Amino acid sequence: MLRTHTCGALRMEHVGQDVTLSGWVARVRDKGGMIWIDLRDRYGITQLMLEEGKGNKEAIEIARTLGREYVLKVQGKVIERVAKNPKMSTGDIEVKVAAIQVFNPSKVPPFLIEDDTDGGDELRMRYRYLDLRRDIVRQNLVLRHQVAKVTRAYLDSHQFIEVETPVLIKSTPEGARDFVVPSRMNPGQFYALPQSPQTFKQLLMVSGFDRYYQIVKCFRDEDLRADRQPEFTQIDCEMSFVEQEDVLNMFEGLVRQLFKEVKGFDLPEVPRMLYADAMKYYGCDKPDTRFGMRFVELTDLVQGKNFQVFDAAEIIVGINATGCAGYTRKEIDELTDFVKRPQIGAKGLVWVRYAADGTLKSSVDKFYTEEDLKSIAARFEAKPGDLMLVLAGDVKSTRPQLNELRLELGSRLGLRPKDKFSALWVIDFPLLEWGEEEKRWFAMHHPFTSPKDVEAFMHLPFERLGEINANAYDMVINGVEVGGGSVRIYDRSLQNKMFELLGFTPEEAKAQFGFLLDAFEFGAPPHAGLAFGFDRLCSIFGGADSIRDFIAFPKNNSGRDVMIDSPSEINPKQMDELYIATKPLPQKN
Amino acid sequence: MLRTHTCGALRMEHVGQDVTLSGWVARVRDKGGMIWIDLRDRYGITQLMLEEGKGNKEAIEIARTLGREYVLKVQGKVIERVAKNPKMSTGDIEVKVAAIQVFNPSKVPPFLIEDDTDGGDELRMRYRYLDLRRDIVRQNLVLRHQVAKVTRAYLDSHQFIEVETPVLIKSTPEGARDFVVPSRMNPGQFYALPQSPQTFKQLLMVSGFDRYYQIVKCFRDEDLRADRQPEFTQIDCEMSFVEQEDVLNMFEGLVRQLFKEVKGFDLPEVPRMLYADAMKYYGCDKPDTRFGMRFVELTDLVQGKNFQVFDAAEIIVGINATGCAGYTRKEIDELTDFVKRPQIGAKGLVWVRYAADGTLKSSVDKFYTEEDLKSIAARFEAKPGDLMLVLAGDVKSTRPQLNELRLELGSRLGLRPKDKFSALWVIDFPLLEWGEEEKRWFAMHHPFTSPKDVEAFMHLPFERLGEINANAYDMVINGVEVGGGSVRIYDRSLQNKMFELLGFTPEEAKAQFGFLLDAFEFGAPPHAGLAFGFDRLCSIFGGADSIRDFIAFPKNNSGRDVMIDSPSEINPKQMDELYIATKPLPQKN
Repeated sequence: MLRTHTCGALRMEHVGQDVTLSGWVARVRDKGGMIWIDLRDRYGITQLMLEEGKGNKEAIEIARTLGREYVLKVQGKVIERVAKNPKMSTGDIEVKVAAIQVFNPSKVPPFLIEDDTDGGDELRMRYRYLDLRRDIVRQNLVLRHQVAKVTRAYLDSHQFIEVETPVLIKSTPEGARDFVVPSRMNPGQFYALPQSPQTFKQLLMVSGFDRYYQIVKCFRDEDLRADRQPEFTQIDCEMSFVEQEDVLNMFEGLVRQLFKEVKGFDLPEVPRMLYADAMKYYGCDKPDTRFGMRFVELTDLVQGKNFQVFDAAEIIVGINATGCAGYTRKEIDELTDFVKRPQIGAKGLVWVRYAADGTLKSSVDKFYTEEDLKSIAARFEAKPGDLMLVLAGDVKSTRPQLNELRLELGSRLGLRPKDKFSALWVIDFPLLEWGEEEKRWFAMHHPFTSPKDVEAFMHLPFERLGEINANAYDMVINGVEVGGGSVRIYDRSLQNKMFELLGFTPEEAKAQFGFLLDAFEFGAPPHAGLAFGFDRLCSIFGGADSIRDFIAFPKNNSGRDVMIDSPSEINPKQMDELYIATKPLPQKN
Repeated sequence: MLRTHTCGALRMEHVGQDVTLSGWVARVRDKGGMIWIDLRDRYGITQLMLEEGKGNKEAIEIARTLGREYVLKVQGKVIERVAKNPKMSTGDIEVKVAAIQVFNPSKVPPFLIEDDTDGGDELRMRYRYLDLRRDIVRQNLVLRHQVAKVTRAYLDSHQFIEVETPVLIKSTPEGARDFVVPSRMNPGQFYALPQSPQTFKQLLMVSGFDRYYQIVKCFRDEDLRADRQPEFTQIDCEMSFVEQEDVLNMFEGLVRQLFKEVKGFDLPEVPRMLYADAMKYYGCDKPDTRFGMRFVELTDLVQGKNFQVFDAAEIIVGINATGCAGYTRKEIDELTDFVKRPQIGAKGLVWVRYAADGTLKSSVDKFYTEEDLKSIAARFEAKPGDLMLVLAGDVKSTRPQLNELRLELGSRLGLRPKDKFSALWVIDFPLLEWGEEEKRWFAMHHPFTSPKDVEAFMHLPFERLGEINANAYDMVINGVEVGGGSVRIYDRSLQNKMFELLGFTPEEAKAQFGFLLDAFEFGAPPHAGLAFGFDRLCSIFGGADSIRDFIAFPKNNSGRDVMIDSPSEINPKQMDELYIATKPLPQKN
């Protein structure tokens, strides 16, 4: 037996017992006559003590050779500490060591195994197994385990059945790029890794499974932005004989249960916001509702006063930065520079300051009277001490620009703390969006999402199809889309029409999705579902910006695992067996 | 709302309530004045009733158009049945229908949606979504869900943390063939899909996770025998600071918990059998211990009596088919033909019959006296009425041949019922096995398994390494290996030596497993683990021979999913982006 207790287990009640502990050396303090060792494992730290001339001589000798991260087994007796440490769960006791066995020595780690480490990102990724030894990183993965556990318990209690869908499936041209897998047994042919189990979960509904879930790896071969991973995990769910309302209630229940059990926080009822309102009041489809600062439109109020910029604009819209009237010229210039950054692209920023003394001043005083400014302030419901910030331009660009400004201000004003949570459902997304470049309609969610108005969908002229909304919904927490789904099409002719609109020929639709279209002819029930981004959900619960911290072995932005050095070349024999060859590679710059 | 209750929910207490049900038409009986419909969903069947002239006329009209597998919503009132059906949970009531809405009609399914179907294997796989609608198939997947749930609950309660390891990893030449995935972002390079998360779980132990588990998809590009799948699922586990005994106890606990909760069966303590004894007494490393019939060796007893076959044999070994003395000549000939089949390859079968009247007769009476036969019978502990069956030859072939005969007899005698369970641990496997063809040692388990005797491993001459046993163990249930694992090497020099023995150059070892070897230098703890074949485990619990019945969307023996028609060709643009091309394909025969 390599241990009788873990390093987090011993208490006053164990005093006098002979115990065996195993763990890592966190610290050694050698005071000459006395040596103390902090022994660490996943469960805690226990202080070991050796006294010169009293303990086992051999143990003292070994203790003097120990370094950080050595792995030991020690035997000894639990004694009460003279100087107790109330900050440690084991702080009342220490173990008087009789024998030490070193399982493994350790080289000096390339960075500090502490919450506040000196290791850079690349070094920590290369030695991920040491990075994971840091308490703060392991806690993220423990949280992930908890989120999975609570999710499963909730869904189990609601009669969902966990079903595994295949990983080796078929490549489809719609959507993001697939990872593909050459088949040795079927030369010249390829499997694809799933971007989601969408069609399989729909088939399970046709099969009468009624309620399905899976916590499942999905894959997308996309150019990776800072916070994407080529493989990611979804909580994937589907229900039969339900309408949108049933799905929203079921998964609002899940999220509230998660907040309660994982964060000890009672999430209030999750409000619902129309997509159109989200765009109108927040300029984006995933508003951060931890703070207000909703958009206020001034178009009707400020045009016709000879201010050319406003008169030429399609929309004039602003936010009220409450309490910011004291912003200096420099601070306002910073905000102006912020919105003029190329990534945001605004032409300029108009401000109206409602000074504490009640006077109004603006960057456009030349064009607007005190009276004008008063009615603007009234529209903003501004009070003395507030600062109104206004953008103008075309609708399509201006709202997203103001969204960026609003978020920036929210951050500056401390209105977006990581330990505050605000969730909402965004509903009634458009069904289709127009691809300017490709000159065709694209499914905003995916091709299996049902239109709200089937009649309109079947009969509206092609160019007006953008008016139709979908039975689609997203859950947004703190401005991050954590999940989304839709009520699905379950009628073959409706699905055919959708594929046709999306530019599939009947032959292509049959080749790609014939099995699903066929299934719809054998008694497909109404069904709907959704998927949560599991990595993202965990990062929200963990109060972190990056999902990478919640994945045990993540890949970098080039899709590489720098620890195992993957991907890598494979041997020619392997390629021969798969009937593939590599083409001449692109020239490196 | 599409339903107020499921089709399995209504009881006498609901009589008088207005309800809405949704489901599939299982059966329609139209008796002229009355129509009955069995409406089915996952939860059960509810009888619907419509009475001509009393109900809604429109509903009657719709009812007359319904076919099997149509999907409906019905509204009506729960009434007490005149003729109750005690076999159905809803058999006390029926629903008097006021309105019917058809969600979807259904074509006639290509096979009967019943437990006893007329659909052949290929047809059912092509329409797997209809096959899954059969109660018997869905129950298999519900059982799978249960096994997963109990497994997670058990491991959670023992402080295991579920950690997801990556699916896109690195190809390694050792072991079975990898599936590979070309990397677009790293041209000319490939990921591999994991055959198991072995190295990652070991790294998690180095990271101090202490106890890890995962129910995880693994992949092997092997030529598929009847009951293999290219993607399969493992319950994968690893523990730190444990010895073999700790692991056996922990996972024996899991299996007993599973039997208790899933089958309602108290599995007795799981016995342990040495690999050497399994070979000696059963001729295989996964004996079916639902029945006895252990091997009895006669070599010393029967040689030197001028029977050339026995005298030339390395081993003479048999089994006692208790109570089979009545076997006819024809039955014995069948058994002889059985062992002489090319797949088994015995030269012949010797029998000794202990007749009910106490006389002994054999197929080798020419060489053996009554006295000889008596001492043979005594060695078998045979009684009047028994039949002894004996094979002779070299040890390596004869034992496996007798194993086949033993299993065949067990089946014939009804000693292997699917609802009886016998589990055992097989321990002390050899560490290495000699590859005759390759003229080198192979790891019997895998290269990370530790030798029982490290000293011997480091110092025995090369040709004697086969004598060394491993800290490796398999769990066998009813003659099927359901899981296995080992105590791992955690010392770099020992691991280096192992790689060297397995024919790795130091450079190859570093290129393939450098990250693990490096990790061993930063304080690797003693650790051990195991993995259960999850599909296999489910099939055992379900009393089935094939794992395919316990996988929602399995592939056929050519690795194809015939429902979605995968794998398939991909478009040239996709291949260009991946810098790969297909080679000229092999000529089809």
